[in-house]
Amino acid sequence: MNMKRILWLTCFLSGLSVYAQNNDSLIIRRLYTEVLTRGQCYPALEHLCKKIGGRLSGSPQAQQAVTYTAQQMYNYGFDTVYLQGVLVPHWVRGEKEAAHFSIGKKQNRVRICALGNSMATPAGGIKAPVIEVHHLSDIPKLGREKIQGKIVFYNRPLNPTYIHTGRAYGEAGDQRGNGAIVAAAYGAVGVVVRSLTLALDTFPHTGMMRYNDTVPFIPACAISTVDANLLSDALNSKDSASVEFYFRQTCSMLPDEISYNVIGEIRGTSKRDEIIVVGGHLDSWDNGEGAHDDGAGVVQSMEALRLFKALGIRPKRTMRCVLFMNEENGVRGGNHFADEVQRSHEKVIAAIESDAGGYTPRGMTVEDTATLQLFQKWIPLLSPYGIESFRKGWGGTDIGPLKKTGTLLIGYSPDSQRYFDIHHTAADTFDKINRRELELGAGAMASMLWLLSEYGVK
Amino acid sequence: MNMKRILWLTCFLSGLSVYAQNNDSLIIRRLYTEVLTRGQCYPALEHLCKKIGGRLSGSPQAQQAVTYTAQQMYNYGFDTVYLQGVLVPHWVRGEKEAAHFSIGKKQNRVRICALGNSMATPAGGIKAPVIEVHHLSDIPKLGREKIQGKIVFYNRPLNPTYIHTGRAYGEAGDQRGNGAIVAAAYGAVGVVVRSLTLALDTFPHTGMMRYNDTVPFIPACAISTVDANLLSDALNSKDSASVEFYFRQTCSMLPDEISYNVIGEIRGTSKRDEIIVVGGHLDSWDNGEGAHDDGAGVVQSMEALRLFKALGIRPKRTMRCVLFMNEENGVRGGNHFADEVQRSHEKVIAAIESDAGGYTPRGMTVEDTATLQLFQKWIPLLSPYGIESFRKGWGGTDIGPLKKTGTLLIGYSPDSQRYFDIHHTAADTFDKINRRELELGAGAMASMLWLLSEYGVK
Repeated sequence: MNMKRILWLTCFLSGLSVYAQNNDSLIIRRLYTEVLTRGQCYPALEHLCKKIGGRLSGSPQAQQAVTYTAQQMYNYGFDTVYLQGVLVPHWVRGEKEAAHFSIGKKQNRVRICALGNSMATPAGGIKAPVIEVHHLSDIPKLGREKIQGKIVFYNRPLNPTYIHTGRAYGEAGDQRGNGAIVAAAYGAVGVVVRSLTLALDTFPHTGMMRYNDTVPFIPACAISTVDANLLSDALNSKDSASVEFYFRQTCSMLPDEISYNVIGEIRGTSKRDEIIVVGGHLDSWDNGEGAHDDGAGVVQSMEALRLFKALGIRPKRTMRCVLFMNEENGVRGGNHFADEVQRSHEKVIAAIESDAGGYTPRGMTVEDTATLQLFQKWIPLLSPYGIESFRKGWGGTDIGPLKKTGTLLIGYSPDSQRYFDIHHTAADTFDKINRRELELGAGAMASMLWLLSEYGVK
Repeated sequence: MNMKRILWLTCFLSGLSVYAQNNDSLIIRRLYTEVLTRGQCYPALEHLCKKIGGRLSGSPQAQQAVTYTAQQMYNYGFDTVYLQGVLVPHWVRGEKEAAHFSIGKKQNRVRICALGNSMATPAGGIKAPVIEVHHLSDIPKLGREKIQGKIVFYNRPLNPTYIHTGRAYGEAGDQRGNGAIVAAAYGAVGVVVRSLTLALDTFPHTGMMRYNDTVPFIPACAISTVDANLLSDALNSKDSASVEFYFRQTCSMLPDEISYNVIGEIRGTSKRDEIIVVGGHLDSWDNGEGAHDDGAGVVQSMEALRLFKALGIRPKRTMRCVLFMNEENGVRGGNHFADEVQRSHEKVIAAIESDAGGYTPRGMTVEDTATLQLFQKWIPLLSPYGIESFRKGWGGTDIGPLKKTGTLLIGYSPDSQRYFDIHHTAADTFDKINRRELELGAGAMASMLWLLSEYGVK
């Protein structure tokens, strides 16, 4: 090729690139204008929270959420809508939990809730001396002599010096997830875990715990941070020797139930076989309304696809909205979805999960540096909308199992400061949602879907 | 200079630069750790909101806020603390406002509040036919014939498609600020302005209006967005001809009062004569607690300086915290401060204002492109803390008058989505503040102070 031709071609291609950027910029502006002026995700979330409420796997509310969201996808005109059956655990909380600690004859009522998947206490509750620890590794150090017959109180707070609160949550999570296993191995009779929040308040935060068949099962509960501090003060007082903890919970694990991932698609035009997934999880804890966790992700994912339908924009690649069932206490929906992708040799090139609350968009996280560099060039298109940060980080619990199918995993990353204040509590309710923040998140996800659909992931 | 020496010097200088960046990065990390673990701004704001409350210029509460914040600055160990006297307007709201609109015999109560600086209605209130307009420019088009004897209802909503809500607020503000002047010029007897918010709710939002001596003074109030929509529906119904609006307010402008800007300093070491100002405004509207507007800016500004004192970090240049009086209805404090800087030939090289709420930090705004480029090189130091956006934009109302002294004006820019939901309403209360968001803002401001103090603005 002679120099002139190369020059001409360069001009032509860079012209094309400018045209593409302009076109992308116009599409993204249209997506945002639609969501900010005629957005449907806020009323949809109001329905999920206020007409249905907490949607724990196996509950009637979870089933209602399946029916409602599938109907919404039909109403929005998605090209196909289907339910993907999956067996899910069916844990129920039972009666409201009760707890106190006593110092001599004085009783102090404290606010607790059973951890998800925990067994009940004996019907009359359980009372025992209590020992405070800060790390799982404290247990073997203390040994059976100090742990046997006691209730173990895990009281390590979240680290407030991290800027992204998810990091603090992640680091403190071992107490809740594995605390009962480690304590039981040394003869503990129960476990009380400091709520996984940076806030100092009176809400106990539930969340999943697990058992291990090699050690006895013991009941586990979360205690509010205010009450955790009071209990710790008592255990560090001169009367510490007389401190006992009492709690009663009647939760139980029932047989598995059939439930569903709810899936809707807009089919691609020229690259229909390449699929981009966007999703959140339909189940939530039972104690609140699952507004931020993860009603927000559910309605944003549906809205992201609806925007394309409403505007008549046809993507090159297929966009698939997946509302996963059972993220909270089993990840059965996420695992099953990935298994089906693998079994059917579908090409899911990328998946975006929104499961960090309905707060103002900040950016996206991806696991590898190469993709980060690819995404950097989209920043000029996205930063006018406040999407300014592509960072290395986790995709999400539901899309995690897609790693085995070679899917690029992307975490939608809204502002993280308020999320763990209400996470897994009775305070995760619709009134904590800001309409514009929710809509901007749907706009951010739709914009990423558009760019992934146009340009793929390489 | 020979090549070898140039190379050596380059290595030496780039080594110095790396050292400087590392040192800055360590200082910034220490500032954040201090504010996130031992921060004082949240309890200080609680005091301003809950022990003092709304702090309108000239009120006893404004005076209490002066005393309290000066005392805090002493407690924090600032090198000097002083009060700068300034005469401020003293407007009082009087009794709770009342309003309704009638369609024939049916009355619909609506939620209003007097606009700041407005006159009262006659003692029995005012009742008149009402005409809806969307722009100031509609008034001359309609002419005296259509306006005379009527109450003008300005009902242009904020534009929801802007991403930064401040832009929408700015564009809609002429209705509130100048609506009464324009309407009175054509014979209107009163003005009702749609509240300047993107939220659809029942809170009326107050805010400053002004008069002009060339036209009659007429009373002006704000109406909640929900009620504005109801009124507009009535005016667009078949019964529109019978619609009348009634409102009663007893507000009045009393004689000016002496008040104060509260000022505290940490003196610089090597460049003591160069001053960097950080501030917010101490006054607030009377109907809420002035939590986000601008209690947040006040306590963040004090905290930013306190962090240096607490950590024993001595800045090169002088850091001056200025808590301005009377931003809301007169800007007398801001004007007086700038006049004094000019009169005394002080060198205030830069000023940062925090008056956009206590939400999560996003970035800073500056007015000129050259400074934007200077600041870009600080992004790697600040982005780990979520300060990702330096944009062209406004500095702030209180620091605005410093433009004449050649001061670089910097607006601290937190997330803007929720601010106008509660701005100038009874809902601007302490419970809307998130502790970490507030503290992160103080950290952001302190970090900018540090960099400005080390490197200046050129």
